[in-house]
Amino acid sequence: MKTVAFVLYPGITPLDLVGPLQVLAQLEHFDPEYETAVVAERLEPYPTDTALSVQASHTFADVPEPYAVIVPGGVEPTLRAMADGTLLGYLRQAARTAEVIASVCTGSLILGAAGLLEGRRATTHWMYRDRLARLGATPVAERWVEDGPIITAAGVSAGIDMALALAGRLVGDESARLIQLGIEYDPQPPQGGLDWSTVDIASYAPYADKALRSALADHPELLGRLVDDLASPILR
Amino acid sequence: MKTVAFVLYPGITPLDLVGPLQVLAQLEHFDPEYETAVVAERLEPYPTDTALSVQASHTFADVPEPYAVIVPGGVEPTLRAMADGTLLGYLRQAARTAEVIASVCTGSLILGAAGLLEGRRATTHWMYRDRLARLGATPVAERWVEDGPIITAAGVSAGIDMALALAGRLVGDESARLIQLGIEYDPQPPQGGLDWSTVDIASYAPYADKALRSALADHPELLGRLVDDLASPILR
Repeated sequence: MKTVAFVLYPGITPLDLVGPLQVLAQLEHFDPEYETAVVAERLEPYPTDTALSVQASHTFADVPEPYAVIVPGGVEPTLRAMADGTLLGYLRQAARTAEVIASVCTGSLILGAAGLLEGRRATTHWMYRDRLARLGATPVAERWVEDGPIITAAGVSAGIDMALALAGRLVGDESARLIQLGIEYDPQPPQGGLDWSTVDIASYAPYADKALRSALADHPELLGRLVDDLASPILR
Repeated sequence: MKTVAFVLYPGITPLDLVGPLQVLAQLEHFDPEYETAVVAERLEPYPTDTALSVQASHTFADVPEPYAVIVPGGVEPTLRAMADGTLLGYLRQAARTAEVIASVCTGSLILGAAGLLEGRRATTHWMYRDRLARLGATPVAERWVEDGPIITAAGVSAGIDMALALAGRLVGDESARLIQLGIEYDPQPPQGGLDWSTVDIASYAPYADKALRSALADHPELLGRLVDDLASPILR
């Protein structure tokens, strides 16, 4: 079996996980070799950044050699997870044999903290994109980015597009179109698409700094890689 | 407080719930009167149609008068839920005072079974759309449909678009655009949009019939409203 393992940790943004999970859970209908699992350190309900709690189907130990491993992101809990030794250890171990190592949104910061993005082109949520360079990656402003076994998606909803692209690679574009039809993914954003010309990304850097300082206060070495001027009191 | 209550029952398609939840959980940042809850009969992990289990934050009894109630869909478990008296009772009670009664995907069949779609324009997953007429509604082939307090979305991913439209109504389009920016909802389906001219919707009717017959075998009256020729053995 080829196990597509979604990695769960406390506090995720659930759409980061559920978007691609809903897509890739259909792979088995097109190739019975595929199965999906949600893996976590413990099998208990974890909080998310919404009112929903979520629980994994398997522990890390149950799925030591997944075919694919996919890491969702989130806000401060994800930044804290960059220093979670058990999580990073699982990812490093899984990466030794996985054919696909993927992330959604700030999940790529966790891949970066695990040392898995060294020399890779990668993306993440636009607010943290420039930080990828501090983790050895080359930040790219695309919806999703493939570099060898690494596939990283932009913020939150981008995981759906990434997963459909991955499904196309694994079971073919015709099958991916049937998955797309099943989830009726024919987007019509009611306020239109995003107009990036109106988004001053640099102006959000202080918010990213503040979140990183709060989340990684006990991990000065990692924090020092991610923010400038660690001693500055201004944004504490 | 205005509570936006997402209704959970066993076996849902989690993207139906998590898409709009991720959007509407942001309302409180624009108007502190809003809060979101996930409500269920019991506070325990429920299975979904994927490897993820999900748990509510509140019981039905905790949130008797939500401002908005939103029902996700799914496959056979959702069809079975059309005969869940506790769930239908909660929805009928909530509908007496709710300003917004919404569904995603086949969640509208549950609203219909509760008698809440009588005389309303409504939509659902394309495979079940024609069945809405058998529940007293007028089926409409749109991404989402608003009729008085009722807002129904098409299949699965359409809940994201519906939720952004609802956010626009509740906190304004400028705030909805900021929510959209936060979840980076700038869709780029890698295989392109859906080409409905290639989808023979009528050819899927036997699959819908089969699922309904399997799910509602113990509820012949409701089943009789939803399928023709109840006695036909062909698709049993």
